[in-house]
Amino acid sequence: MKQRVPGKLYLIPTTLGETNPLEVLPLSVKKIVEQIHYFIVENEKSARGFIKSICPHKSQPRLHLFLLNKFTEAEELPSFLEPCFEGNDIGILSEAGCPGIADPGADVVRIAHDKNIQVIPLVGPSSILLAMMASGMNGQSFTFNGYLPIDKDARKKEIKRLEKLSYENKQSQLFIETPYRNDAFLEDLITTLSPETRVCVACDITLKSEFISTKTAKEWKKNKVSLHKRPTLFIFHKD
Amino acid sequence: MKQRVPGKLYLIPTTLGETNPLEVLPLSVKKIVEQIHYFIVENEKSARGFIKSICPHKSQPRLHLFLLNKFTEAEELPSFLEPCFEGNDIGILSEAGCPGIADPGADVVRIAHDKNIQVIPLVGPSSILLAMMASGMNGQSFTFNGYLPIDKDARKKEIKRLEKLSYENKQSQLFIETPYRNDAFLEDLITTLSPETRVCVACDITLKSEFISTKTAKEWKKNKVSLHKRPTLFIFHKD
Repeated sequence: MKQRVPGKLYLIPTTLGETNPLEVLPLSVKKIVEQIHYFIVENEKSARGFIKSICPHKSQPRLHLFLLNKFTEAEELPSFLEPCFEGNDIGILSEAGCPGIADPGADVVRIAHDKNIQVIPLVGPSSILLAMMASGMNGQSFTFNGYLPIDKDARKKEIKRLEKLSYENKQSQLFIETPYRNDAFLEDLITTLSPETRVCVACDITLKSEFISTKTAKEWKKNKVSLHKRPTLFIFHKD
Repeated sequence: MKQRVPGKLYLIPTTLGETNPLEVLPLSVKKIVEQIHYFIVENEKSARGFIKSICPHKSQPRLHLFLLNKFTEAEELPSFLEPCFEGNDIGILSEAGCPGIADPGADVVRIAHDKNIQVIPLVGPSSILLAMMASGMNGQSFTFNGYLPIDKDARKKEIKRLEKLSYENKQSQLFIETPYRNDAFLEDLITTLSPETRVCVACDITLKSEFISTKTAKEWKKNKVSLHKRPTLFIFHKD
């Protein structure tokens, strides 16, 4: 009996908003999406929309989609990879940006490594990386911290702790916030940090409305900006 | 007198090795390189080679290149941005990957923000980000630490300290090493870390020889791999 070659797990970035996919994705992503029929996706509707936008002639009824989001039980995950053992490649698609980076996917990748399935990350936009590049801060040492505590006192304490770490380790500190809390979060940053600490606000990255600016906390107090409901990365660095 | 519109500073990723550029870069990068004549580059020869590979018909004699590497004096940097004030766009190109991320560029970007020059990061490959995606480790919280100390005792101490941080903060820890020291570095990791700590080795990313695997320190001891002179990212996470 012939031994079947196992399929591979491709990590497929998507756009970060309403952008023409080929403005932010290399052609190789289109080629891979063209050849894959099994996808692990965060949201069926947007996954189908993305696949249609990048490969308009691909048969949608032939797609097999597995849902991976906060409702997915950990026990289901290994079964998502079964098509690999029948020789099929599988793609992971998250809602925006890169699977596994501030987005679902890492748990499936972990299982793939355990099962010796080859994992192939594809190039595409990550708001974390693009913000870091454009911040002018130290890209030799940086931490992505995700979300800070919601409680105001705990949050301010954490900002102070991370500012100290930034200073001691020459390390840029990155964060995201729920978009409707962005303005309050920037206010917390600029009132809690030392006046000379630099803060980068990187908003609507890769979109027409992109806004990226680095100023000191003191300067931000004089230059207000509206970030309400706009996807934003915050980075700070104390020199 | 007409007010001239200032030029923009584009951060232009390049390939991570011998790859066809359009396999890893979106078409928008080609369009931007086509229209720019001023570049801040890490190495003249490879910058010209990259520009030629992506825009074969672009006039090489018309290019103005500023060199940005370890020999560049900080006082020279502001002059690199002067063409912006005459209405010219400028691109930053590093040797491989994304400017400003484990590569030169951040200092120029910092000056651009101070001078209110718009900074636009373009999408392309970053070995740090691709390794993080493919590691199956926590992409909600991670630190890129750059290089660890060369002294063996200091290095082992630092590995232990970061393993503790990884465990306490559920944070993935990323590193790079000088390629000819990769094998010794992996040995240091797997002999210093707890046996169950997961270690990802991500090597030759985006190249044909790409190798990405996550195993526990204990498993790596039984599965040796040769990383000599291959560009490699190391990531660990203690659960």
